[in-house]
Amino acid sequence: MIYKFIEGGVTAPKGFTAQGICASIKPSNTTKKDLALIYCDTVCNSAAVFTKNLVKSDTIYVTKKHLENGRAQAVIVNSGNANACNADGYEKAEQMCALAAEALDVNVNDVIVASTGVIGQVLPIEPVKKGVEAMKGTLSKEGSTNAAEAIMTTDTVKKEWAVQFELDGKTITIGGIAKGSGMIHINMGTTLSFVTTDAAISSKMLKEALLEAVEESYNMVSVDGDTSTNDTLAIMASGKAGNIEIAEKNDNYKLFTAVLTEAFKAVAKKLAADGEGATKLLICRVSGANTKNDAKIIAKSIICSSLVKAAMFGADANCGRILCAVGYSGAKADVHKIDVSYKSAKGEILVCKDGLGLEFDEEKAKEILLESEIEILVVLGDGCGSAEAYGCDLTYDYVKINGDYRT
Amino acid sequence: MIYKFIEGGVTAPKGFTAQGICASIKPSNTTKKDLALIYCDTVCNSAAVFTKNLVKSDTIYVTKKHLENGRAQAVIVNSGNANACNADGYEKAEQMCALAAEALDVNVNDVIVASTGVIGQVLPIEPVKKGVEAMKGTLSKEGSTNAAEAIMTTDTVKKEWAVQFELDGKTITIGGIAKGSGMIHINMGTTLSFVTTDAAISSKMLKEALLEAVEESYNMVSVDGDTSTNDTLAIMASGKAGNIEIAEKNDNYKLFTAVLTEAFKAVAKKLAADGEGATKLLICRVSGANTKNDAKIIAKSIICSSLVKAAMFGADANCGRILCAVGYSGAKADVHKIDVSYKSAKGEILVCKDGLGLEFDEEKAKEILLESEIEILVVLGDGCGSAEAYGCDLTYDYVKINGDYRT
Repeated sequence: MIYKFIEGGVTAPKGFTAQGICASIKPSNTTKKDLALIYCDTVCNSAAVFTKNLVKSDTIYVTKKHLENGRAQAVIVNSGNANACNADGYEKAEQMCALAAEALDVNVNDVIVASTGVIGQVLPIEPVKKGVEAMKGTLSKEGSTNAAEAIMTTDTVKKEWAVQFELDGKTITIGGIAKGSGMIHINMGTTLSFVTTDAAISSKMLKEALLEAVEESYNMVSVDGDTSTNDTLAIMASGKAGNIEIAEKNDNYKLFTAVLTEAFKAVAKKLAADGEGATKLLICRVSGANTKNDAKIIAKSIICSSLVKAAMFGADANCGRILCAVGYSGAKADVHKIDVSYKSAKGEILVCKDGLGLEFDEEKAKEILLESEIEILVVLGDGCGSAEAYGCDLTYDYVKINGDYRT
Repeated sequence: MIYKFIEGGVTAPKGFTAQGICASIKPSNTTKKDLALIYCDTVCNSAAVFTKNLVKSDTIYVTKKHLENGRAQAVIVNSGNANACNADGYEKAEQMCALAAEALDVNVNDVIVASTGVIGQVLPIEPVKKGVEAMKGTLSKEGSTNAAEAIMTTDTVKKEWAVQFELDGKTITIGGIAKGSGMIHINMGTTLSFVTTDAAISSKMLKEALLEAVEESYNMVSVDGDTSTNDTLAIMASGKAGNIEIAEKNDNYKLFTAVLTEAFKAVAKKLAADGEGATKLLICRVSGANTKNDAKIIAKSIICSSLVKAAMFGADANCGRILCAVGYSGAKADVHKIDVSYKSAKGEILVCKDGLGLEFDEEKAKEILLESEIEILVVLGDGCGSAEAYGCDLTYDYVKINGDYRT
């Protein structure tokens, strides 16, 4: 599989432009960008996945309705207010679509809408209206960065990416923007992400590819075990690359899905690394499990453990925390065949062999764990199942950020 | 149901004595008590529940074996070392029992053994030997406090309790000691607890009563979502109160179980209030759920949410965090019929009605949430199921304590 990451974001594929501005949706914060538009000059085949939380922002119901025909042409998205648990939420979400449709001259049913921010506060529509007006005519190839910034909440780093590969001798580009950084967990199309591509692919295959890619990436990342009311991951395909449309699960489908998966894994790592308060990216690789599913369950259990996360923050090579998280994960495992190592740019150290704690060089372990990207390697003796999950450490700043999120 | 809490702990019931000392099991800490004995002058009907973690301390296997006949006469327990994930763990656990049996002149198969502390480090038996020798002949009614102190790890408050009620005109006493305070979660007989009673009750009924009482108490408390390798809750009944032995599920069984449940709920609150780093006890009461089980799932989901816990630390009356945790709990619930209030000694405030966020008096909410015991009240509109779960806030100190637990 040959592909390469390139500069750019959601506007990298042919046909797409974007913009993001400060619309002052959250009155207390008047400089931060908080409203974005993404536009394609043609109607796209589209698909999306959403939060599985029973409590949903009305933006999700509106977007679902608009995507029933598998088609979309634009995205409008705000940060600073989740438009969730409000009496007029549905109406406001529809108004946002109408404003975008009018400004971009597209069909209102072809608009995807999303929001992120505080739950249970009424969304003011006036700033959105003014913001859309202000962005009208300014959408550009360069606007991806502004859009990426406009969807950030507690993120400290904007997330945009693009990747290229060949299909039928044509260059296919996929690009995207994403936001973190708290209330992120594994049972969902995590957080807000907007993905574009110029590949020609049917809506049905796009949805299949999305579901496959999410399974190994967004569904394997956890920051804090909480799943939000607003999570939306939407993808739009303009078809402008000129390849033969992918309409079945052929080799081209497989290649497209494989590249999408790799790109999403890179995003998952970015989300975890920039998790609220995080100082370290944790990558847990489990191998030798009974089944792939057992490996996934174990990897996620480790990544989600508050005690593992706190130990990693403190660069404490505690093997008990890892063994414990394997043991309560719910997966089958022979506890007398568990090896645990920590690995980083500074080297690798085995701290547990066959389920028994080892004496090890504490200085060396500390040196390894003081790095900002840590691999937790768990080798079981049960079978051939393997999996990878992404998380971050639990820090003072996580507590600080969430101790008073609303102000 | 008439019962009263009284002074005293594990030695309050007739027949029991105890002691605890510093045996220097953890060399770095030479003043903290870390070894305890509990003894009954007669062999007791006994029962226990254990962690469900697949990775178990060998103390659990040894205690299970010794309780196969439903009989026990003594407990030996240490802190400072979990004796888990060690090659010689089983042997060391047996040695501990043998040392206690010899010192107390009881059958080695009638000894319950437990350990708590760091996982994966070899347990030094010499300090245990010297400690048991030193305690020999010193066990007393006053020794409960020392025993309670000896099983503390990161606990800041010792946990001992006793309760009395009448059965067949006889006074029945139940007493106990318990430890917290991290790695505490709901799927288990949480942490280490030793309970004694002078009630006459068969081993079989004692086990049934224990399981019932645990379900509403220890299984409804969470500090951090992690379940340990060592959790043991053992109960011994001396029969010295002189009541007619409870040998079936009659009214006396029901009363005994009801009092045991209330006592365990009080312990659960103590464990939660003294959770690692905690500044606040959180009690989540859910009512109006489809079923009792749905209510339990929702109450536990809220108590376990890192975002709820951090918000409570910050005294932030965020209703989105609560709704979110209801929504991803996995329980059935009509999200348009959820009311949420916060309550403390300073009053009560409604922050969400029918699933919609309300405007409320932020000053008043802050005042309520600055108290050290907070009730989160969730009223659903689905049925008659209700439940109560116990937790604590997530604080800087939790991160600090667990960032470097081993040193």
